[in-house]
Amino acid sequence: MNEHEPVLRLREIRSFCVGGCVRSVHGLPVQRRRLALGGPVRPVDPNGEHITGQMYVQAYLQAEPRHRLPVLLWHGGGMTGANWESTPDGRAGWLSAFLHAGFDVYVSDAVERGRASWSPWPDIYADAPLFRTLGEGWELFRIGPPGSYRRAAQERVAHAGQQFPVAAFEAFAAQWVPRWVGHEHITLVAYDALLQHVGECIVVGHSQGGGFALEATRRRPGHVAAVVALEPSGAPEAAAAAGVRLPPHLAVWGDYMGAHALWRRYRATADAYFDALHAAGMQASVCELPREGIAGNSHFPMLDRNSDTVAQRIIAWLDHTVRP
Amino acid sequence: MNEHEPVLRLREIRSFCVGGCVRSVHGLPVQRRRLALGGPVRPVDPNGEHITGQMYVQAYLQAEPRHRLPVLLWHGGGMTGANWESTPDGRAGWLSAFLHAGFDVYVSDAVERGRASWSPWPDIYADAPLFRTLGEGWELFRIGPPGSYRRAAQERVAHAGQQFPVAAFEAFAAQWVPRWVGHEHITLVAYDALLQHVGECIVVGHSQGGGFALEATRRRPGHVAAVVALEPSGAPEAAAAAGVRLPPHLAVWGDYMGAHALWRRYRATADAYFDALHAAGMQASVCELPREGIAGNSHFPMLDRNSDTVAQRIIAWLDHTVRP
Repeated sequence: MNEHEPVLRLREIRSFCVGGCVRSVHGLPVQRRRLALGGPVRPVDPNGEHITGQMYVQAYLQAEPRHRLPVLLWHGGGMTGANWESTPDGRAGWLSAFLHAGFDVYVSDAVERGRASWSPWPDIYADAPLFRTLGEGWELFRIGPPGSYRRAAQERVAHAGQQFPVAAFEAFAAQWVPRWVGHEHITLVAYDALLQHVGECIVVGHSQGGGFALEATRRRPGHVAAVVALEPSGAPEAAAAAGVRLPPHLAVWGDYMGAHALWRRYRATADAYFDALHAAGMQASVCELPREGIAGNSHFPMLDRNSDTVAQRIIAWLDHTVRP
Repeated sequence: MNEHEPVLRLREIRSFCVGGCVRSVHGLPVQRRRLALGGPVRPVDPNGEHITGQMYVQAYLQAEPRHRLPVLLWHGGGMTGANWESTPDGRAGWLSAFLHAGFDVYVSDAVERGRASWSPWPDIYADAPLFRTLGEGWELFRIGPPGSYRRAAQERVAHAGQQFPVAAFEAFAAQWVPRWVGHEHITLVAYDALLQHVGECIVVGHSQGGGFALEATRRRPGHVAAVVALEPSGAPEAAAAAGVRLPPHLAVWGDYMGAHALWRRYRATADAYFDALHAAGMQASVCELPREGIAGNSHFPMLDRNSDTVAQRIIAWLDHTVRP
């Protein structure tokens, strides 16, 4: 028992799927396969009905929540809800940070990621998935500068002052899952089903999930009391901020943006949207962590060694922004 | 707050991956794709290193566990750890049952299932996955007799007295994930890594995971204080029971076996192993639920409407069998 952490008092831990529909597959050959250790060979017929488009959600519900609204944690591209549970070097994740702060928390796996399952192509999905290499992740996630990845861990050079626990990089990569492109629509349909299921809530989305959080909030503003986009890799068009009333927005950015051209572009897209929200009279705050003296964050501040510091920065903003 | 359920008092909820290794992929074309909503088109190079063979584990650790040993819950083929969290009709799952009984609980996703991720083929895996249709599940999981599945839910005929919550069948099917054949070796290597990570424990495995639990126990008997095979679809060869000292075993079987030829074969395989364990002087108990007056169970007793009754039957056996 770690005496520094208070006990989590939960009335319920449960999970469910939302969204999805039945789709049929026809005309594929029947195979004969052995499916279980020591079991017999048997026919396997892939033709028939399948569920597709669903997402998976875990709910951690407090015995005595200290906040009126739950927090929904939405992971990024090629990731699952595991991002929020623990850091790759074994520290408590933001799931625990938000639970200890008194929120009910919903952790989800978006459509086609992790426990949400995925569908065959070209029968249901149009295309094959993409698999991220360790090298792409090392550089894209701003752990080291472009060109710094090496197969041998001891030869990799991280950014100076890097907060990501680089010795646990392979443990982090073990969490990554394949992803498809062009699935924004089906993913947003499922996220919208989740918002309808949960009711009024706070959404914290990371990377691709940050873009989804911004767009899902724009589509259903009455269900979102506040949205936090952590390093969003996308955002609605700036013009989408006109003529709507949206809840308070917070964008949170880590370090080393200058060394990565792609991140400068992603950042510019999000800035344009936040500027437009602000110009239209809405609350759209931008927290650039290095400007607040919090230096060295990668693209994954919730996994970095200072992850608790960043979580407390966001929780303080929520405490200040959302009616208790 | 449900006043009938006591509060869960947890010191920690965390997750991690075990097992796995780095594998390289070479010679594939570089694609140009747009990966994020509103983001730019960019090159995507699949060539490089990937982690493969890992499994995903969630640990629910009690503030004051009332049992010395944790329970590991291992799902079946085409499933994930979500099987243990909630029933498809929204009742608490066996994760909650074992937590309320005072055990620390580990829920895992086996290699290539759910949050464990999966690898490209033919580059790393040899073959394409299999996708289970609703019709195959309805019949194979003994919800209705062979030939009873219909696309229209109201036309499906379940077994008389069926305990499975048939109105939630689509919600159940939304949990299913693709699976590969021929991955027994890599899956067992990861389960063995899990047993080494956790140390002495109790393993409860369902269906394909029941077969894995029996084999993993045989390979590392010092780490398993008791093993429960719930409807195992495989088992070690009977000859494997000779010349070893293994911990207490319990097999648990549901109803309607007589109507399903494949299940009679799976049952015969497990019975032969349990008979051999018994003949060699080990404790190998078989609980046929209908013979104990618990009728109507499908292949998924942990999801059936009497799931709590079956959980308590197993917990009573553990209380009687495992040194506290």
